[in-house]
Amino acid sequence: MPSDEASIIAVNETFYAAFAGRDLTAMEVLWAESRPVCCIHPGWGALHDRRSIMASWASILTGDEAPLVRCERVHVRIADTAATVICEEVLGDAHLAATNAFIHENGVWRMWHHHASPIARRVTPKPEPLLN
Amino acid sequence: MPSDEASIIAVNETFYAAFAGRDLTAMEVLWAESRPVCCIHPGWGALHDRRSIMASWASILTGDEAPLVRCERVHVRIADTAATVICEEVLGDAHLAATNAFIHENGVWRMWHHHASPIARRVTPKPEPLLN
Repeated sequence: MPSDEASIIAVNETFYAAFAGRDLTAMEVLWAESRPVCCIHPGWGALHDRRSIMASWASILTGDEAPLVRCERVHVRIADTAATVICEEVLGDAHLAATNAFIHENGVWRMWHHHASPIARRVTPKPEPLLN
Repeated sequence: MPSDEASIIAVNETFYAAFAGRDLTAMEVLWAESRPVCCIHPGWGALHDRRSIMASWASILTGDEAPLVRCERVHVRIADTAATVICEEVLGDAHLAATNAFIHENGVWRMWHHHASPIARRVTPKPEPLLN
């Protein structure tokens, strides 16, 4: 049986497969139904109901410029029945920071929150000073 | 005893009071210490360690143009020991969408995730068609 972390990484990959594959049905299955959901697309305000969120994905996934997206730099945080994935979305030359949150619903992890925003500034931690 | 929702709204207000009041000490107290934390400022990539996050807040809160921020349109989501607040940050004429996540640590709610991004597009749900 996969660990929670492996399951969460897998469901996050399912999200990006649906996104990149323009698969609205897979996207609909992924989002939670028993809890309030929220989606914040880059530059948008928050959408707080499932119908608006699915309409937004329909618009994005069927548009002429539906983005070819891939996911990198995945970090998983788990707290009981909720989990958060922080990752980067790569769309051509653009990189976006993403917060994806999942809840355990009827035995499976489902998405209840997505927030993505463009990265304009990359902060590189300063190296520690070298000892002689 | 306040409900979880009231406690979470209160800790979210504490965050914005520290932000608007340029109170770095209050900001440091607010962030969780026993769990990995993450902060995504507008236009930035994700910061994944407490030291970098506090350095970023020190830079923001002590800068000449430290923002006068207030919080609106608060929505709370609770899942066991984790909670998410989705809200809008108002800074002058600018509105930002924010995801703030809190965990229950030693009996109090503490911040473990902050993600804010500018709103360029306000989506207004279409009105239902009128019946004759």
